[in-house]
Amino acid sequence: MWKLLSCGLISALIVLSSPDQLLAQTGDQTGGRVIDVDVPAPALRGNLLNSPSTLSAAIYLPPNYDQQPDRSFPVVYLLHGIFDDYGVWIENFEVPSILDRLIAEGEIPELIMVMPNAGNRYGGGYYRNSPVSGNWADAIADNLVGFVDEQFRTFADVESRAVVGHSMGGYGALNLAMTRPEIFSVVWALSPCCLAVNDDLSFGNDAWQRAAAVTGPDALQDLMDDGDFYPIAVLGIVTAFSPDVEAPPIYGDFPFDTVRGEIILDDAAFDRFLDEFPVRQVREARENLRNMRGLALGVGLGDQFLHIPTGTLEFSQRLGAERIPHRLDVYAGDHRQHVGERLENIVFPWVAERLSVPE
Amino acid sequence: MWKLLSCGLISALIVLSSPDQLLAQTGDQTGGRVIDVDVPAPALRGNLLNSPSTLSAAIYLPPNYDQQPDRSFPVVYLLHGIFDDYGVWIENFEVPSILDRLIAEGEIPELIMVMPNAGNRYGGGYYRNSPVSGNWADAIADNLVGFVDEQFRTFADVESRAVVGHSMGGYGALNLAMTRPEIFSVVWALSPCCLAVNDDLSFGNDAWQRAAAVTGPDALQDLMDDGDFYPIAVLGIVTAFSPDVEAPPIYGDFPFDTVRGEIILDDAAFDRFLDEFPVRQVREARENLRNMRGLALGVGLGDQFLHIPTGTLEFSQRLGAERIPHRLDVYAGDHRQHVGERLENIVFPWVAERLSVPE
Amino acid sequence: MWKLLSCGLISALIVLSSPDQLLAQTGDQTGGRVIDVDVPAPALRGNLLNSPSTLSAAIYLPPNYDQQPDRSFPVVYLLHGIFDDYGVWIENFEVPSILDRLIAEGEIPELIMVMPNAGNRYGGGYYRNSPVSGNWADAIADNLVGFVDEQFRTFADVESRAVVGHSMGGYGALNLAMTRPEIFSVVWALSPCCLAVNDDLSFGNDAWQRAAAVTGPDALQDLMDDGDFYPIAVLGIVTAFSPDVEAPPIYGDFPFDTVRGEIILDDAAFDRFLDEFPVRQVREARENLRNMRGLALGVGLGDQFLHIPTGTLEFSQRLGAERIPHRLDVYAGDHRQHVGERLENIVFPWVAERLSVPE
Amino acid sequence: MWKLLSCGLISALIVLSSPDQLLAQTGDQTGGRVIDVDVPAPALRGNLLNSPSTLSAAIYLPPNYDQQPDRSFPVVYLLHGIFDDYGVWIENFEVPSILDRLIAEGEIPELIMVMPNAGNRYGGGYYRNSPVSGNWADAIADNLVGFVDEQFRTFADVESRAVVGHSMGGYGALNLAMTRPEIFSVVWALSPCCLAVNDDLSFGNDAWQRAAAVTGPDALQDLMDDGDFYPIAVLGIVTAFSPDVEAPPIYGDFPFDTVRGEIILDDAAFDRFLDEFPVRQVREARENLRNMRGLALGVGLGDQFLHIPTGTLEFSQRLGAERIPHRLDVYAGDHRQHVGERLENIVFPWVAERLSVPE
Repeated sequence: MWKLLSCGLISALIVLSSPDQLLAQTGDQTGGRVIDVDVPAPALRGNLLNSPSTLSAAIYLPPNYDQQPDRSFPVVYLLHGIFDDYGVWIENFEVPSILDRLIAEGEIPELIMVMPNAGNRYGGGYYRNSPVSGNWADAIADNLVGFVDEQFRTFADVESRAVVGHSMGGYGALNLAMTRPEIFSVVWALSPCCLAVNDDLSFGNDAWQRAAAVTGPDALQDLMDDGDFYPIAVLGIVTAFSPDVEAPPIYGDFPFDTVRGEIILDDAAFDRFLDEFPVRQVREARENLRNMRGLALGVGLGDQFLHIPTGTLEFSQRLGAERIPHRLDVYAGDHRQHVGERLENIVFPWVAERLSVPE
Repeated sequence: MWKLLSCGLISALIVLSSPDQLLAQTGDQTGGRVIDVDVPAPALRGNLLNSPSTLSAAIYLPPNYDQQPDRSFPVVYLLHGIFDDYGVWIENFEVPSILDRLIAEGEIPELIMVMPNAGNRYGGGYYRNSPVSGNWADAIADNLVGFVDEQFRTFADVESRAVVGHSMGGYGALNLAMTRPEIFSVVWALSPCCLAVNDDLSFGNDAWQRAAAVTGPDALQDLMDDGDFYPIAVLGIVTAFSPDVEAPPIYGDFPFDTVRGEIILDDAAFDRFLDEFPVRQVREARENLRNMRGLALGVGLGDQFLHIPTGTLEFSQRLGAERIPHRLDVYAGDHRQHVGERLENIVFPWVAERLSVPE
Repeated sequence: MWKLLSCGLISALIVLSSPDQLLAQTGDQTGGRVIDVDVPAPALRGNLLNSPSTLSAAIYLPPNYDQQPDRSFPVVYLLHGIFDDYGVWIENFEVPSILDRLIAEGEIPELIMVMPNAGNRYGGGYYRNSPVSGNWADAIADNLVGFVDEQFRTFADVESRAVVGHSMGGYGALNLAMTRPEIFSVVWALSPCCLAVNDDLSFGNDAWQRAAAVTGPDALQDLMDDGDFYPIAVLGIVTAFSPDVEAPPIYGDFPFDTVRGEIILDDAAFDRFLDEFPVRQVREARENLRNMRGLALGVGLGDQFLHIPTGTLEFSQRLGAERIPHRLDVYAGDHRQHVGERLENIVFPWVAERLSVPE
Repeated sequence: MWKLLSCGLISALIVLSSPDQLLAQTGDQTGGRVIDVDVPAPALRGNLLNSPSTLSAAIYLPPNYDQQPDRSFPVVYLLHGIFDDYGVWIENFEVPSILDRLIAEGEIPELIMVMPNAGNRYGGGYYRNSPVSGNWADAIADNLVGFVDEQFRTFADVESRAVVGHSMGGYGALNLAMTRPEIFSVVWALSPCCLAVNDDLSFGNDAWQRAAAVTGPDALQDLMDDGDFYPIAVLGIVTAFSPDVEAPPIYGDFPFDTVRGEIILDDAAFDRFLDEFPVRQVREARENLRNMRGLALGVGLGDQFLHIPTGTLEFSQRLGAERIPHRLDVYAGDHRQHVGERLENIVFPWVAERLSVPE
């Protein structure tokens, strides 16, 4: 029932034409500035969804970046949600203004914030490596981080590098924490999606059967044209979490068959499928996660995506069972409420405090 | 996507015209016979779904019921699932033949089995008390049990009375165990539905929003005409578990609002709603459940109704946490597979063994 | 194996002779001052442990308390752990200096902090009501709060009143949140004990059997003289959580019998016992807890009292299951490490931010 | 507090002098007979506890074993608990008589039952492979099974071979199911110990610290002489589950240090330790467990070893989460009550029904 055009996802498309305009937007000579960059991303080459192998990103440079040409800065990567792009950070949540204020008030040190675009035709690649949707984790952790450390004056060290994300980006941040601890050491996941397969993400959601019923390109096009949120999001999940390069037109494996309208689960396929989701990956990643300088999750109890509160709570419990330090914030609010104010009042100060800023 | 006509529920309508015909059906003078009865059920009076206040039931009388006119018998009540009737037991699972065989082989004592009909326009009243769908728990535990004990030679004692059910009837059996321990002392729930609100029963299933969107009688009629399984089952659940006599046309409370296609949960309403489901009721009912002579649950891991395996496992865990003896059978199979063979090989012998049969 | 004298509990006995001396102690004319008071506590009258019905407390008054005689202040109550007293706050954790610094730096508003003594012969009454150990919850929430609001210039309103505790005091803070929401609206529990009965608090700990074996006053005296931590703490738990005025010499009910050195659990007694612990009380208290302005828990994974991390994690999960907003901090560290720095850097600022400070 | 001599473990030592005597014992020419055998067990060679590398076992041969010299039989292996030997089966639970009755009544087919001794100086090797206590799993699955298949007329096939155990033997049966599915296909664990580390098996049990405090052979001898059950059992657990051939005199690693009487956990060591226990091994062993022809667990809620009911319930839940068919029986009773009657009425018939008995 959620149409993409009215599905309540966060940003509208915005165009960032030039750094100068953006600087003008901030309307404050003492603030930082935002530039946009195109970053070669060989990790995405050969993906089957025709996503370009170039990453676009907006980069916030702090107020004294230009004035102090010998100074280096810690870096925070900020990952957006499904069907969004970095416009959500800049226009909707006004992250540049938030950073200007926090820096001006001394709440956080001057830092660089990197906001990549990571959408695709199904809403996004979940910042995961997949032969179908592309190696998005590598694109961020290798291509983008490499580019930023080369092109900008950063403390090019894991201890000075954080990743923060919302929804699909919250999942992405945790996935990077679990798999790339040599790159990121501080992580905050806001309302992270896809930690566990339940509620609206369970196969009890009709969208799974609708997506699985697609057998040819026409049916796929019909599904896309229909514009319903969940079936298309399911395609994104299957291509990112359960890819199969031998299975056109979707190139993904569904862990069930449908017989007379009913789901028939396949044990081995279901095993493989569930094993790709974070609540099942904490144990294997426990040393990586324990070594984080900071690991935090927050979620609103009224999240419209019902699996997000339950998945976040279950993930916290698994962290606890594996004796992994972390912070969990459970608050009244939905998927989008309070995100901006939490970034300003809680997330950015907490993250910045844990980043190493060498003298 | 499940149409009612093709939804795979179990029985077709059958007509039992007379006891004599049924006796003929069994084709065996040494077997029992089945009669059908109409039982006044004042507990159903005034329900808002226009269900009649009469219960139909098929009753199996064991081989020697007539020949030994001074002998009394223990009684098992057998509760069918949603959108079914007692035909499922007689035609599909051939319960009378099963009982004949088990009695002939000495696997169970001679006993009476009572198979009521408990459907309504939304598939059934879940054997619960509700001012909207009717007081089905009382109809079974008071009206039907009273009738049977009066009209037939039974051991009219809780220790000689069991209740067994499948799917909606499995829920019903457990609900009666929790609330009417003075009536039933042995309980087996096969693939019980509705123990917890998750997977296909969670609000992540689109059917909830479709049902909640009904605001007038025309929309209700359209939903019914559409014949999809889940939205109609949701109406049955809401009228049985969350009735509201002040809220036409559905007369039920949904624990959420829908705003722009998204679910907005209401804490207090959600509390009240969840509190009506068994995983939350075990603690309060623990003494009742502990006093059962037998309490068992079985479920197939491949159940098409995804909440049934997860709910059954969670219910077992809650029973364990409250130190309540029980048996749990988890097997490979779906919602309907193995039901007949399990009744014969496992359920009926196990239940019968625990029933008191005074000398 | 933990002797009381070497058991690692926090404070040594200290004597606070007079407010003037304490003021001198702070060594800073711009800081606050600490006075000690004796508060009549009728709620403790008639307890069977001979605890006096007077509460001693240290009270921190902020720097401008005296200079601004028309100004009122919010109040934080600070509850110590087992076998401790308010000396732990003043000498070990240097709370007055922490508050002076935080106020001077503008991190928190000026506020009053009240630190009661709540020990008894078994280490403490757990800030619970008990006919045996005394009505400690009432002594705090009614007698002490009443006294403070009467004798000092406070915002005598629930929205301006917080309770913070460590270990037994962490339990106490949560117990007051669950039962006295009209008195306290902001709560932080540091390493709270006794949320669930497991690990070192389970009956698997030999101390339970040793305590339960006491049948007369001599055996009780021997146990006390022995000075082992756990058996005496068990006496404190039994008298506070499972009191029985008819059962000398301990006046408490153990939910098991011991036969030939083995524990025989009693279902009904075990039910009653477990029902008194917080993980089982969240559901009933959910509305109280949801209405908190702030609810937080923190725990070190290396806590020597093994039930504290597991209990805290389980409590958080129950809060989540009941949709109760809260913050959980899980960190590397033991029962005592980091308490002082967490009070200064995290707890007091977080608590103060949520307190209402009317203009 | 449990002394070994009075610790309530099951059997006294018995001597089986000859098969003839035993046959006489059964007092029935139509019953089976029991012989005792010594089996070379190279898998135990080189163990550091000086256990001999020979297994003793009692073997029940069914009534027609001798009369029908061309007939083969399925085999059930029966594993005893800690500080016991096969006498517990023969004298205490009268297994030969049970089998005679079941076979005579046609409840089970004629089968061979093999009852090995598996004790050591610390009570037993838990039927696990360990360089310290010996490779007990291999001794059973390879040496003993090989001997039996060679010396007796068996169906030497996994489908005709079951393993049943009680307490330590229940753990052993599940361990063999998880690791040796090519040998055993039907498994029943009665009151299995050691599935999870909690309650009396948690480090909250003082016995851990007492065992860990042993630093030399004298202290070890003192601990042994003391005869307390738990500290010695801890030695058995550490040598079997956490062996360290470099760490005399115990040759085991404790996952904690003790500082001033308090436990200091070590994350990495604790990880390794917990990973050896079954609740953490279900996922990896899921395909093995799913392929069982029968998998069942039973436990009495009043078990004196408190971790056994909680561990059994948790293990069942993990099985369910991994979609592994199984049966769980939770009943009123303690560690020893009902074991004999359950073997006769439930366990042996259920196991036998699932064994393949080729024509």
